[in-house]
Amino acid sequence: MLYSVIMAGGTGTRFWPLSRRKNPKQVISLAEGPSLFERTVARLKRLVPPERTYVVTRAELAPTLRALAPQLPRENVIGEPVGRDSAAAVFLGASIIAHKDGQAVILVSAADHLIAPAARFRAAVRKASGLARHGFLVTFGIPPTRPSTAYGYVECGAALPGVAGAFRVRRFHEKPSSRTARRYLRAKRFFWNSGLFVWKAATILDAARRFAPEHFAAISPLGALHGAAGFQASLAAAYRKVNRISIDYAIMEKARNVAMLKADFDWADVGGPLALRRCMKADGAGNIHIGLVDLLDSRDCVAVSGDDRLLALFGCEDLVVIQTPDATLVCPADRAEELKKLVSRLDARSDTAEFL
Amino acid sequence: MLYSVIMAGGTGTRFWPLSRRKNPKQVISLAEGPSLFERTVARLKRLVPPERTYVVTRAELAPTLRALAPQLPRENVIGEPVGRDSAAAVFLGASIIAHKDGQAVILVSAADHLIAPAARFRAAVRKASGLARHGFLVTFGIPPTRPSTAYGYVECGAALPGVAGAFRVRRFHEKPSSRTARRYLRAKRFFWNSGLFVWKAATILDAARRFAPEHFAAISPLGALHGAAGFQASLAAAYRKVNRISIDYAIMEKARNVAMLKADFDWADVGGPLALRRCMKADGAGNIHIGLVDLLDSRDCVAVSGDDRLLALFGCEDLVVIQTPDATLVCPADRAEELKKLVSRLDARSDTAEFL
Repeated sequence: MLYSVIMAGGTGTRFWPLSRRKNPKQVISLAEGPSLFERTVARLKRLVPPERTYVVTRAELAPTLRALAPQLPRENVIGEPVGRDSAAAVFLGASIIAHKDGQAVILVSAADHLIAPAARFRAAVRKASGLARHGFLVTFGIPPTRPSTAYGYVECGAALPGVAGAFRVRRFHEKPSSRTARRYLRAKRFFWNSGLFVWKAATILDAARRFAPEHFAAISPLGALHGAAGFQASLAAAYRKVNRISIDYAIMEKARNVAMLKADFDWADVGGPLALRRCMKADGAGNIHIGLVDLLDSRDCVAVSGDDRLLALFGCEDLVVIQTPDATLVCPADRAEELKKLVSRLDARSDTAEFL
Repeated sequence: MLYSVIMAGGTGTRFWPLSRRKNPKQVISLAEGPSLFERTVARLKRLVPPERTYVVTRAELAPTLRALAPQLPRENVIGEPVGRDSAAAVFLGASIIAHKDGQAVILVSAADHLIAPAARFRAAVRKASGLARHGFLVTFGIPPTRPSTAYGYVECGAALPGVAGAFRVRRFHEKPSSRTARRYLRAKRFFWNSGLFVWKAATILDAARRFAPEHFAAISPLGALHGAAGFQASLAAAYRKVNRISIDYAIMEKARNVAMLKADFDWADVGGPLALRRCMKADGAGNIHIGLVDLLDSRDCVAVSGDDRLLALFGCEDLVVIQTPDATLVCPADRAEELKKLVSRLDARSDTAEFL
């Protein structure tokens, strides 16, 4: 049976100041309508029932997510005591699910991706589940539409016989330089690493045992404790023993049974504010604007007034401006993916850390 | 005896959103310390006593200015019922002063200029007064330090014998193109038109009679009415009869008895936000910042947080960003002198006019 684990622990740093630690981008309504987390839960509804849907997040965010998805059993929203990156979160979900169902297949997805149309996504997940049942760790590869330097890439090898769009994975590549990204785009065999995975609980735990034995030793016993009284304390103890490492580094780059399924749905990682360009319609001058904004002689800007103050841009080009009730960000669009640098610096200043 | 008329009716459009109609730039504290109006009054203190100092402003602004300069007699702060540009204001002041003192010499200055050092300014005014007593309309010409397109220029002709730095004026020129401004800078005989004038009340009223007879007919009788009960009503009636015209167009470009005195003091017209570059010290990267501002990888920016919100600029260059409790402006520095365009547009939008 299919289970789902939603990874919802992100701090949304790149979407500051709309996104804050206590109110990260996955839980806020970026344009209008439901938050990214709610959209993610809704997208999975027809694939996986609520009792088989799990959320792994930061402990401080768990109450917010439970309130946004009240249909999920309370204990299915798991709050990590500290962030240990995606490997720990993936193993935690798999351990809990494997304890309930030895044959479980798990869809791992992020809470801050935009995916459409839902029907095509569901069909793709079902196809991936078939591969997963054969023992593959399946990752979705997104056909790149531009030489993005914001994503990691999956380089695929031989096609897997009998499954259209499925390939062996040759290598995972980190975020490339612009030049390398252009080469990847031309070469056709490189795909964006979506962070969307499908695998059997047993397969990923086997891989953990082999490639991340400390993680496996610390985390796999938690499956049997889930739902019991001492769970949070055991979780805290286990997390103290493991390093921060992503699932890509810990497993995907090492395992041999990795398959890539070419995605035929639209996908966007809502990283920074430029993502608004992908989910909103621009005006005639290429500007995206939300709220009380006036744009004169300006083009290709993203301008958000997150309160009832007026935001006026005059003569601006390719600029991101976001104002909120307590903080305003101004940065050129081509720096928007590097916002982590700014946030680190604000964090280090005694008079600005409170704005994160 | 020397009198002073401070022209303080400006709306400060170019300094929006720090400057508002009801709170224009001459009355606000731009960086720290006294407002431009208070600085102007203080600068004149050792030249002209309060009872000989007059202020011409918009009626709605008169109470604010009286509060900022309580040492001035209440009736010396004259509120115009409608704006009629500088010619009407100059003639009004001259008519009132001439009625009191037939030999009066008047220093006309703007409320939004920065001038230093004060002692050198005072000496220059005394020198100009000497020329004025000989029947000249004296304007101060500022030696240009860059090819500014934001100022009008005075082209000087023959030196006036016996007074160092004094010249006949050949012509007044409007704000030039960049190319023309560069030519002016090279030619050495062009000076910035400061809008600082010294003349006898009688001389400027003679010029008004000759070159602006409608203004003269409407306004000169007001001198005798000043301080009496019906003054405001007479003023309103007179102003209904005159056109909007600047003193440059109405008189200076037409009169033959115009002299220019080369200024040997520092002068800046605080037009738009770039003026902050002239009155504040930049950081190592050329940025001017006021308030809670963080500038990362940014240079040559002017960033003002006019409340307790954080303003963060990341990767910006040569940008002006001003945030206030209800409005934020973002524009490249090279467009900052054109802010009137933006303000006109905001004025025309039903949902933004309230922010002016």
